[in-house]
Amino acid sequence: MCGIFAYLNYRVPRTRKEIFETLIKGLQRLEYRGYDSAGVAIDGNNNEDKERFIKLVKKRGKVKALEEELYKQDDLDSKAEFETHFGIAHTRWATHGVPSAINSHPQRSDKRNEFVVIHNGIITNYKDLRKFLESKGYEFESETDTETIPKLIKYMYDNRESEDTSFSALVERVIQQLEGAFALVFKSIHYPGEAVATRRGSPLLIGVRSKYKLSTEQIPVLYRTCKTKIICLISLIGNIENVKNICNSRMKRLDSSTCLHAVGDKAVEFFFASDASAIIEHTNRVIFLEDDDIAAVTDGKLSIHRLKRSASDDPSRAIQTLQMELQQIMKGNFSAFMQKEIFEQPESVVNTMRGRVNFESSTVLLGGLKDHLKEIRRCRRLIIIGCGTSYHAAVATRQVLEELTELPVMVELASDFLDRNTPVFRDDVCFFISQSGETADTLMALRYCKERRALTVGITNTVGSSISRETDCGVHINAGPEIGVASTKAYTSQFVSLVMFGLMMSEDRISLQKRRQEIISGLKSLPEMIKEVLSLDEKIHDLALELYKQRSLLVMGRGYNYATCLEGALKIKEITYMHSEGILAGELKHGPLALIDKQMPVIMVIMKDPCFTKCQNALQQVTARQGRPIILCSKEDTESSKFAYKTIELPHTVDCLQGVLSVIPLQLLSFHLAVLRGYDVDFPRNLAKSVTVE
Amino acid sequence: MCGIFAYLNYRVPRTRKEIFETLIKGLQRLEYRGYDSAGVAIDGNNNEDKERFIKLVKKRGKVKALEEELYKQDDLDSKAEFETHFGIAHTRWATHGVPSAINSHPQRSDKRNEFVVIHNGIITNYKDLRKFLESKGYEFESETDTETIPKLIKYMYDNRESEDTSFSALVERVIQQLEGAFALVFKSIHYPGEAVATRRGSPLLIGVRSKYKLSTEQIPVLYRTCKTKIICLISLIGNIENVKNICNSRMKRLDSSTCLHAVGDKAVEFFFASDASAIIEHTNRVIFLEDDDIAAVTDGKLSIHRLKRSASDDPSRAIQTLQMELQQIMKGNFSAFMQKEIFEQPESVVNTMRGRVNFESSTVLLGGLKDHLKEIRRCRRLIIIGCGTSYHAAVATRQVLEELTELPVMVELASDFLDRNTPVFRDDVCFFISQSGETADTLMALRYCKERRALTVGITNTVGSSISRETDCGVHINAGPEIGVASTKAYTSQFVSLVMFGLMMSEDRISLQKRRQEIISGLKSLPEMIKEVLSLDEKIHDLALELYKQRSLLVMGRGYNYATCLEGALKIKEITYMHSEGILAGELKHGPLALIDKQMPVIMVIMKDPCFTKCQNALQQVTARQGRPIILCSKEDTESSKFAYKTIELPHTVDCLQGVLSVIPLQLLSFHLAVLRGYDVDFPRNLAKSVTVE
Repeated sequence: MCGIFAYLNYRVPRTRKEIFETLIKGLQRLEYRGYDSAGVAIDGNNNEDKERFIKLVKKRGKVKALEEELYKQDDLDSKAEFETHFGIAHTRWATHGVPSAINSHPQRSDKRNEFVVIHNGIITNYKDLRKFLESKGYEFESETDTETIPKLIKYMYDNRESEDTSFSALVERVIQQLEGAFALVFKSIHYPGEAVATRRGSPLLIGVRSKYKLSTEQIPVLYRTCKTKIICLISLIGNIENVKNICNSRMKRLDSSTCLHAVGDKAVEFFFASDASAIIEHTNRVIFLEDDDIAAVTDGKLSIHRLKRSASDDPSRAIQTLQMELQQIMKGNFSAFMQKEIFEQPESVVNTMRGRVNFESSTVLLGGLKDHLKEIRRCRRLIIIGCGTSYHAAVATRQVLEELTELPVMVELASDFLDRNTPVFRDDVCFFISQSGETADTLMALRYCKERRALTVGITNTVGSSISRETDCGVHINAGPEIGVASTKAYTSQFVSLVMFGLMMSEDRISLQKRRQEIISGLKSLPEMIKEVLSLDEKIHDLALELYKQRSLLVMGRGYNYATCLEGALKIKEITYMHSEGILAGELKHGPLALIDKQMPVIMVIMKDPCFTKCQNALQQVTARQGRPIILCSKEDTESSKFAYKTIELPHTVDCLQGVLSVIPLQLLSFHLAVLRGYDVDFPRNLAKSVTVE
Repeated sequence: MCGIFAYLNYRVPRTRKEIFETLIKGLQRLEYRGYDSAGVAIDGNNNEDKERFIKLVKKRGKVKALEEELYKQDDLDSKAEFETHFGIAHTRWATHGVPSAINSHPQRSDKRNEFVVIHNGIITNYKDLRKFLESKGYEFESETDTETIPKLIKYMYDNRESEDTSFSALVERVIQQLEGAFALVFKSIHYPGEAVATRRGSPLLIGVRSKYKLSTEQIPVLYRTCKTKIICLISLIGNIENVKNICNSRMKRLDSSTCLHAVGDKAVEFFFASDASAIIEHTNRVIFLEDDDIAAVTDGKLSIHRLKRSASDDPSRAIQTLQMELQQIMKGNFSAFMQKEIFEQPESVVNTMRGRVNFESSTVLLGGLKDHLKEIRRCRRLIIIGCGTSYHAAVATRQVLEELTELPVMVELASDFLDRNTPVFRDDVCFFISQSGETADTLMALRYCKERRALTVGITNTVGSSISRETDCGVHINAGPEIGVASTKAYTSQFVSLVMFGLMMSEDRISLQKRRQEIISGLKSLPEMIKEVLSLDEKIHDLALELYKQRSLLVMGRGYNYATCLEGALKIKEITYMHSEGILAGELKHGPLALIDKQMPVIMVIMKDPCFTKCQNALQQVTARQGRPIILCSKEDTESSKFAYKTIELPHTVDCLQGVLSVIPLQLLSFHLAVLRGYDVDFPRNLAKSVTVE
């Protein structure tokens, strides 16, 4: 996840310093979306200069570092004033390529910076595009997926059909070639003072500010008149001539009635951003773009167009007036980042799978691992190492990994693994799971295993982190930055990443094809099912009302859902300070059953899976001791509810993915319990987000 | 552990039925010491018969089964009356040889039952003795260590120097050849109406009952006048002639002044038993035998003699008057079996090591494993499987096993292992730990592993149990029967057994010799150190007074003592119903630290071992959050106590054995907490001793 911010001032005189301040402030508001590097593109010439050029300033680190860098630029006169100017800015959360200036955005088309682009999202077909463009002589400099975009628009520009092809027409051609998710803002020396922005999957909105009356409150959506069939560029490799003929028709010429502008061609400012938090201090008047909208500002006029018309399309985009506070916007409609991140999970798991799981061919490709797959298949055992929630992700997927890889799988708490001086051998493959990629114990365990020559694999949410750098290979979970100290979406993305690894390992095992197919189908429907689970929020809130004064809470389950119990109990511990404990239901009779009585609240996770009957036994034991269990069960399960004090009914998915769904009610429960108990959900006492000390 | 009971009536007419009833009742009182088989030896002839013979009745199962068997004996007239008779009886807890009639006691010298013996304890040099005796033509019929004893006394009798060698002189010669621990009672057709009893290491006491005045309240200890050097029989193998010369001198002839008897040669009864519980309903007048005392009853006169005089010897044995209730006696001075079992640990760990660890040569031999050692050494990995406390014993020793075996070691909860359908391979070695040997999940895991052709190893406290029968090989932990549902002495014995296995595996690793030596020295001093820890009982009681009203309790530690925390927390859970949880100190920062505040009681285990510094960090974190930790620490540790709310100071031993000591204060604490909270310690609600259902 990255943050996009851009600022266009039309007939509003601003010094370069003021422009810098606006851009930096905008980025700082978005820093929660990513903060490993940042960059801006502004006009390099002064207002009077003839020769136009774009100046790029990029810096690894937080936005603060970029700000300092900006004022060090000798060739930029900070007092220079611009009546009209378009500047773009970006704060990055690395996905492809380590954090570095060269991998930061804006990415550029060429050394002359003819086109520059900022991007939030992932382009999944970037390798093919890059190959194509390289074959055309375009030279790449970064490791990013994004860099294909400015190169591609330059290619479109270089091959444009006429001199007056508009900026937005070029962008339109570009996005037809892109697969994946994106929000994009383009700037070009060929279109000075113009802005083009578009999105698909990733958020983007535009703020408008003017002292003057605006021409409209509803911006009509325009459509091209072009009827030419859209042809995939990739299929044209080696057949360059045809490209010129793609969609070379013209859009209906803009007129003032179809644009948003200040009446009388007066001063107006436009703000482009990933979310409203970066805009709200400038204006509360905003337009939310829809997928595949292309918004262009030319001569202070904002128009929105789309390539294809479909019946359900809204014919216009309204200017909305935001009534929210800044803090509120940053968190969306949520009272805490943790809550926001819980509700992001339908998207974050999609991001984790994007470009990796091919649902048509039922194949999975984790690019970061594919070169090491042979070596991994030959190993003696897999050791999966993590702390806290990351460890639970390993516990959750251990069984399916054992099944799909047919290898012994050990899961280890990093600190205990180190304490024990665990023997590690050259033919071991060791996985290191850490959201931040900086968890001290996990990092030390990584170094310990490297010394012993094991193959090391990182599973992190932070490209460029120590673990992602020091491992031999790895998987980036792409969950987007996680702000809440209690990890939620990182857990489900780690879970899905490990399952994908298992699927990739088993691709050529004939006996496992049916099972793989089942799991891949499960992955496909996961986002919808997560949404369904999230719709139980109110019911879970009611449950929290009953429970929040309790001191202890047991969470029981077994099999695939043992990890759910551990993780659920940890969430509750972390933010509610209630003494909750995850208990393996199979161990109930070996001690913990003594705790059960009328008073002790018990949550049981009982899913329709191979442990169902055994879980029913545990349930009987609990109810026989007058326990009043709250049961997380399958919607179809009519049996468990008979004995339940309350039930939370979840959609049913394949056994090994059920844990992704079953953990969510516990995440929500912990959240509501903490709020009811009056605690700060995002910053629980005594805990830090990333534990970088032993 | 077994139970010994014997009854001699002198000039007290008793029918055979009455004798049976006395013997059976005595055994039933001792049944808590073992109950897998039982047997009696009584006079087979009737009172008037000329030809003397001894009748043996033995039966697998509880004493009840023996009782039924007794009345089925057609050749025994239950109404026959004996004015003087000596009967011996035994209830067994198998150590050598499965529970069966043939392995039950009394063991006999030959088919004519010339000598019969009951034994509690273990004869560690029985193999050498057996080889010697077999070389002399004595035929063995059982698998027991005990059988060497009747054979040996027969040998002594067959080779006696004169016709009037006394029964006790024979016993004296026998015990000079025995190594190990024993309490023994002998009966012989050659010495009708006579009894000889002796002990070394195992308990034995004698009750006296008479309507008449007793000759003395202090029985003087007699010594042989013999000066002949004691020669080890084993060294004489092949040099039989010398044996006749061993200690052939005579004991000072008995006279009435040196014996205990009813004045005027009147009626008197003697009861021999492993503990007072079997005697108290007959008489409260008892004599406790000391190690190497030989007590003999001839013509109704009890004399006590010893071979060697030493300066510190008490010159006599007093008759003591017991003031206890029956129930109280069964539990000794303890209010519950659990408490008794905690206090038995100095002996139970000795029993676990007896005959296995040779402290002089620093070698360890586990007889049950030695034939499979090669195969185990070649394996791919060790998987140790158990439930509850048995699982904790695996966690506790995992590191030292990894170190000594240089193999990957996985520890698994049996239920989870099964739920996961864990892949197991032919070159895996799987250990199954269970006190009872009948734990359902562990047994199923065993069958699961057998199907997959792994080598299976049992670690149980119950010879003849399903796990000990179905495994390929195994170790009997010899802890003696455990009655309290909360396992205590079985844990420490499992722990020691696993360490012994590691030591045996590493015997020829030159690089590990220093370490092995260190651990073996640690084992040697363990019993004394356990006693030292047990002496802290009062202090721990005071601590319990402070804590018993709490609802939650955290127990934290790491490294070698992580298992201590899990096990300590489980004990507290099981019997106090407080919500206690064992927490890996290394995971503190990943969640559980949020629980820490002034209110939450925290016990920390911080020992002088490689984790000491890391534990100090955890301690700082806890105190920084106003936690008031109770610290289990080393006596030498001056640092931890500075930050402690309270400390419990333990003797320091080698790192990998420290857990045997550190768990004991937590056993004691859980006991006192449960008593203070008013719960039944031995029978916690909802739990059973042996979990034979899934």
